[in-house]
Amino acid sequence: MDIRTGLPVVGMVGGGQLARMTHQAAIALGQSLRVLAESPDDGAALVVADVRIGTHTDLAALREFAKGCDAVTFDHEHVPNAHIAALAAEGVKIYPGADAILYAQDKQRMRERLSALGAPVPRWRPVASAEDITAFAAELAAADPNAAAGGWPVVAKAVRGGYDGRGVWMLDGPEAAAELAATGTALIVEERVPLRRELAALVARSPFGQVAAYPVVETVQRDGICVQVLAPAPELSEARAVEAQQLAIDLANALGVVGLLAVELFETEAGIVVNELAMRPHNSGHWTIEGARTSQFEQHLRAVLDYPMGETALAAPAVVMANVLGGEPGGMSIDERLHHLFAADPGARVHLYGKQVRPGRKIGHVTVLGDDMTTVRARAARAARWLQEGTE
Amino acid sequence: MDIRTGLPVVGMVGGGQLARMTHQAAIALGQSLRVLAESPDDGAALVVADVRIGTHTDLAALREFAKGCDAVTFDHEHVPNAHIAALAAEGVKIYPGADAILYAQDKQRMRERLSALGAPVPRWRPVASAEDITAFAAELAAADPNAAAGGWPVVAKAVRGGYDGRGVWMLDGPEAAAELAATGTALIVEERVPLRRELAALVARSPFGQVAAYPVVETVQRDGICVQVLAPAPELSEARAVEAQQLAIDLANALGVVGLLAVELFETEAGIVVNELAMRPHNSGHWTIEGARTSQFEQHLRAVLDYPMGETALAAPAVVMANVLGGEPGGMSIDERLHHLFAADPGARVHLYGKQVRPGRKIGHVTVLGDDMTTVRARAARAARWLQEGTE
Repeated sequence: MDIRTGLPVVGMVGGGQLARMTHQAAIALGQSLRVLAESPDDGAALVVADVRIGTHTDLAALREFAKGCDAVTFDHEHVPNAHIAALAAEGVKIYPGADAILYAQDKQRMRERLSALGAPVPRWRPVASAEDITAFAAELAAADPNAAAGGWPVVAKAVRGGYDGRGVWMLDGPEAAAELAATGTALIVEERVPLRRELAALVARSPFGQVAAYPVVETVQRDGICVQVLAPAPELSEARAVEAQQLAIDLANALGVVGLLAVELFETEAGIVVNELAMRPHNSGHWTIEGARTSQFEQHLRAVLDYPMGETALAAPAVVMANVLGGEPGGMSIDERLHHLFAADPGARVHLYGKQVRPGRKIGHVTVLGDDMTTVRARAARAARWLQEGTE
Repeated sequence: MDIRTGLPVVGMVGGGQLARMTHQAAIALGQSLRVLAESPDDGAALVVADVRIGTHTDLAALREFAKGCDAVTFDHEHVPNAHIAALAAEGVKIYPGADAILYAQDKQRMRERLSALGAPVPRWRPVASAEDITAFAAELAAADPNAAAGGWPVVAKAVRGGYDGRGVWMLDGPEAAAELAATGTALIVEERVPLRRELAALVARSPFGQVAAYPVVETVQRDGICVQVLAPAPELSEARAVEAQQLAIDLANALGVVGLLAVELFETEAGIVVNELAMRPHNSGHWTIEGARTSQFEQHLRAVLDYPMGETALAAPAVVMANVLGGEPGGMSIDERLHHLFAADPGARVHLYGKQVRPGRKIGHVTVLGDDMTTVRARAARAARWLQEGTE
């Protein structure tokens, strides 16, 4: 409780753009987000009044950070699970809890749990060697008469630490499998799902157990990085949308998630399967800042503070979020690009994360709202290109 | 220019809720607002990373504050005009400039200038004594056969420093006039306009000269304080709306305003007349945070930085902002009230200003969007009551 305002204090571990945007939501609720940042130059540290500098792997720093917080939550999933459990045991309200966030930290545990729950997942296997990978591929080939020779390619994933396409490898044969296995990385392998597209279902759950579900979105990927999010997912049947939302709700309940849960899905001809879980504000939900009645950032705060959840309805028939990646050095400055974008599209909503521009790095996003998805999508792509390259 | 981000630094003099909400807009634009606050407990100082403590009447403090700012602007209109002129002479980009903000600081100069420009204003007069006031009332009586005895009541306004109903007096006769005149306050008097309702026209103007106009709103007043803003103003004819917008655009150009200009208007049977001018984000524009494509706070930043202006279109057919005033001490805490409101109306958008609750003080506002003005208005009123009194 902040005695100056009579309102709660939420601490967020990690000082990236998610904390930065959560602070905007906190301000509206009368709060001031407390942030544990690695550096005073982190995106959130540049804009937040209550910044503590420290590392998320340092239990003493986390303990100190948590003092006086009504709830502690995360900008990322890299806080050691044992630290989260230790803080909870000491009475800190830390969400999502260790028993839940485990499934966003460890892909093997996630696959095991989802399989046990009967949730739709790709065929998968934990593997300890190149031989295990090759054997898995052979099983795929045996099970599917249409499979390529030997069942290749298969998808290998690091059990821990991957994101934004990192920690995921498409293995095209035994040689690639041997090379990866030689790194000693703990791995699982999965069938390559014949996906039509990727979807995401975002829900928020409070300690009380209320769950609010956002409209299901399509996430458009390029080189393993999400480049656009389309809300609502175009031409998604009502039945499939409800199925995806219900799956996310069921998982939030079964895993005991408190806060946001983003369920990344593959849509195939046959149905949906779960790709990944994230338990924090998620790139697939940035569109909610303007595109939904309650942003995912406010929703996450409401959830971890056990406030009733906010309305999730769309604010316009078509909403598109496009990520802005850093371009090559040289050329126009980001400020010049912003001038041009504002002139070109006065309705584009810009979010910049306070990061130094580096090629391929997510430095911001743009959201466009409108009536027609095709038009809105083209505008969002154009706006992101303006900020990214300064050319059209 | 912030070398960490390559984006500009705006300094705002004053640490109240307008600076607090401007910071939210600055974050989206990749910026971090610099704030000159009187106290570290000011609403904006609680949430802003770059806070300087100082007083707006201290030229040395203003000069120090302006160093490194790409533009300096205001949360209120109380910075001495000579200080603004001095800083501008030293090369500070300070907006609105001294020659413009004068008309938001000095009601007599404002009335003189508007009269000279041919803008519609009430009949008015600068007065130096009770006799002057009585003579003005007598003139009103002589001009209007329907006027009450002696032309009373008349409206007296302090030339400087009034806001939110303070600095405005309804004088019902010579005795009240004498009492007020005895205080030595510099005054103008005006006819009491037979108003049907109050409107506000909000525009933003950049140094380049681009002007963007928001939809005209109705401002609902109680005891001299704005309690609700209805966007768009219900049942306002297209012709009257265009007239009000054009008037605001013409005034912004004629006065050389840079940043926001709010023109508070009386609507009468005969037309519109200008009540007051404000040159900063304004209570009548808080609805734009969710209700317009570009919030007034972002628009103000874009204007003072000479970015192209953002789209001003409504985000929903009906938008209502209701101010939340502090209630009597005792009863439910603000946090408990928030729980109840969120349960009662998951779609209400809440903005709390980080202020200690005091009876009658504006501590926040609530915005509701929807399709039907009557429904939306009732929801907004109910939401504000929940936060204000904790009862329905």
